[in-house]
Amino acid sequence: MPVLDYETIRETLHGVLCKFGFREPDAGWIATLCADNSCAGVASHGVHWFPGLIGRTERGQVDKDAEAVCEASLGALERWDGRHAPGPVTARRATDRAIELAGASGVGAVAVRNTNHWARPGWYGAHAAGKGFGLICWTNTVPNMPAEGSAVPSLGNNPIVIAVPGNPAPVVTDIAMSQFSYGRLNEYAARGEPLPVVGGCDIEGNPSRDAAAILKSGRLLPVGYWKGTALSFALDVLAASLSGGACTAEVSARGEKGVSQVFVAFVIESDHGAHVLSTASGLVKAAGNSRYPGEGSYATYMDRRRNGVPVDDEVWERILGWA
Amino acid sequence: MPVLDYETIRETLHGVLCKFGFREPDAGWIATLCADNSCAGVASHGVHWFPGLIGRTERGQVDKDAEAVCEASLGALERWDGRHAPGPVTARRATDRAIELAGASGVGAVAVRNTNHWARPGWYGAHAAGKGFGLICWTNTVPNMPAEGSAVPSLGNNPIVIAVPGNPAPVVTDIAMSQFSYGRLNEYAARGEPLPVVGGCDIEGNPSRDAAAILKSGRLLPVGYWKGTALSFALDVLAASLSGGACTAEVSARGEKGVSQVFVAFVIESDHGAHVLSTASGLVKAAGNSRYPGEGSYATYMDRRRNGVPVDDEVWERILGWA
Repeated sequence: MPVLDYETIRETLHGVLCKFGFREPDAGWIATLCADNSCAGVASHGVHWFPGLIGRTERGQVDKDAEAVCEASLGALERWDGRHAPGPVTARRATDRAIELAGASGVGAVAVRNTNHWARPGWYGAHAAGKGFGLICWTNTVPNMPAEGSAVPSLGNNPIVIAVPGNPAPVVTDIAMSQFSYGRLNEYAARGEPLPVVGGCDIEGNPSRDAAAILKSGRLLPVGYWKGTALSFALDVLAASLSGGACTAEVSARGEKGVSQVFVAFVIESDHGAHVLSTASGLVKAAGNSRYPGEGSYATYMDRRRNGVPVDDEVWERILGWA
Repeated sequence: MPVLDYETIRETLHGVLCKFGFREPDAGWIATLCADNSCAGVASHGVHWFPGLIGRTERGQVDKDAEAVCEASLGALERWDGRHAPGPVTARRATDRAIELAGASGVGAVAVRNTNHWARPGWYGAHAAGKGFGLICWTNTVPNMPAEGSAVPSLGNNPIVIAVPGNPAPVVTDIAMSQFSYGRLNEYAARGEPLPVVGGCDIEGNPSRDAAAILKSGRLLPVGYWKGTALSFALDVLAASLSGGACTAEVSARGEKGVSQVFVAFVIESDHGAHVLSTASGLVKAAGNSRYPGEGSYATYMDRRRNGVPVDDEVWERILGWA
């Protein structure tokens, strides 16, 4: 796997987006986000995610010329129509607007319909935390996970992010409602390694640690069995209800077109916040845990900004073919 | 187990609270909440929870004469000092105020410090949904759960609720961050039944389905391993940061005194919300799942309002001794 300089990655992606006709600031934002995500150790939602965005744009599932619009303002809550503009661009705009609303009212929320895959959810959390705000955001998606005890996917694995400012690393909890994300299952399947814990069922319905067997059956385990089942359902219904958009049952399977997302930002009083994080992380670390959520990806990010970012050979060749 | 009429339970609890000097509307609210929770099938946070509240009040951990006050208003977000008033009373007031703020601004939030155990979290979700609002609320608690891979409790199992209006049953997802709540572990231990899935580790650190062994070791499993670990930490830090209150590391182990809670209410456009719930639950039910989260407790509630509420003999005798 070649190790590339962060700026090389960012500039190359930026050039490709410009060639495909993405406008500014969208092209710059998407390039930065993908480079950041690979740099933070999440290549599946960074450089490796990039060709999929180009593909969905070429197929018309993502509209590079569109821009999300506010359909209704209730004061501190806005409903937006994403108009199928690139997901990460709309998600960044919505995060920034939620922050702006929170700056005025203490809490601010933007609910977006008709949007699409936003790459790595934690990026928006780290972005808000970097500006001194707390953020809860989540998305729905296609039915890609069966409810506990069912063999048929009827729920999305609907990732949720909770982020709080921290120094230097923000707290960023970023979890999908399946015990393993599709990205992680693909990694284990490619390496032929067993999952560390049961991640779903094989085609016969037996609990399994075989990522390939779970990918084949499509029977991913909801995180915490009935608990992830319930959380996924509630996140879906709340996102679609707030945004006026589609629920998981209605999201187009082709390219995850038309998902619903919610962004809720909160003012954090910085001195007390710093005391809280120091106290909470102190107890966790005294109990033998080396990191709080977000510290690992922050450390990886800082290391790779200095020493380079590993990128899959084939993916990079494909991107260079567009450059 | 005797089966009692709902009104008998409510009136008896109300009478006891009055005898102990609780004022109105607090006494009426607490009696209703405890009767409701037993009626909804959650006796551990209903009638069986009631003697603990009396005990904590007698020991001065809960101040029956106090009332929560707003310390700071940022517009749609308020910070309250709970002043150690009874947890369910403050939680109900905070829910109602978040709803009021959301009515004015689309979204409204109340963050409370210095509060205490709120009994069943889902009650507040059902309450908000019954008024046509979405609600996300959560609490922190004492360190009662080790992080994944650790033997020492350093996290709270910090329950979170997500609720959305529904007809007749609201969507109410109400989950603690441990795979099993303490209430559920106690029930399995009392019956001597194995847990349906691994719920923690025994004292030697072996994964276990033995509730008694897990209660003895204190090594409850976070829901979804590393995912529940991360979610619990973020919920704790965000609640304490927003409220200006204590994080799990600082909450008094004696009576869970001084927890931090957050209530976020959202305006739901009712016609679209009804369409979303019908569509989402339609797909889940077509996949073989009989209920969405909240339907089971709603059905139990309606059945028990008609046919009576089972109450533990010893607990009821104790309550009658106070009446």
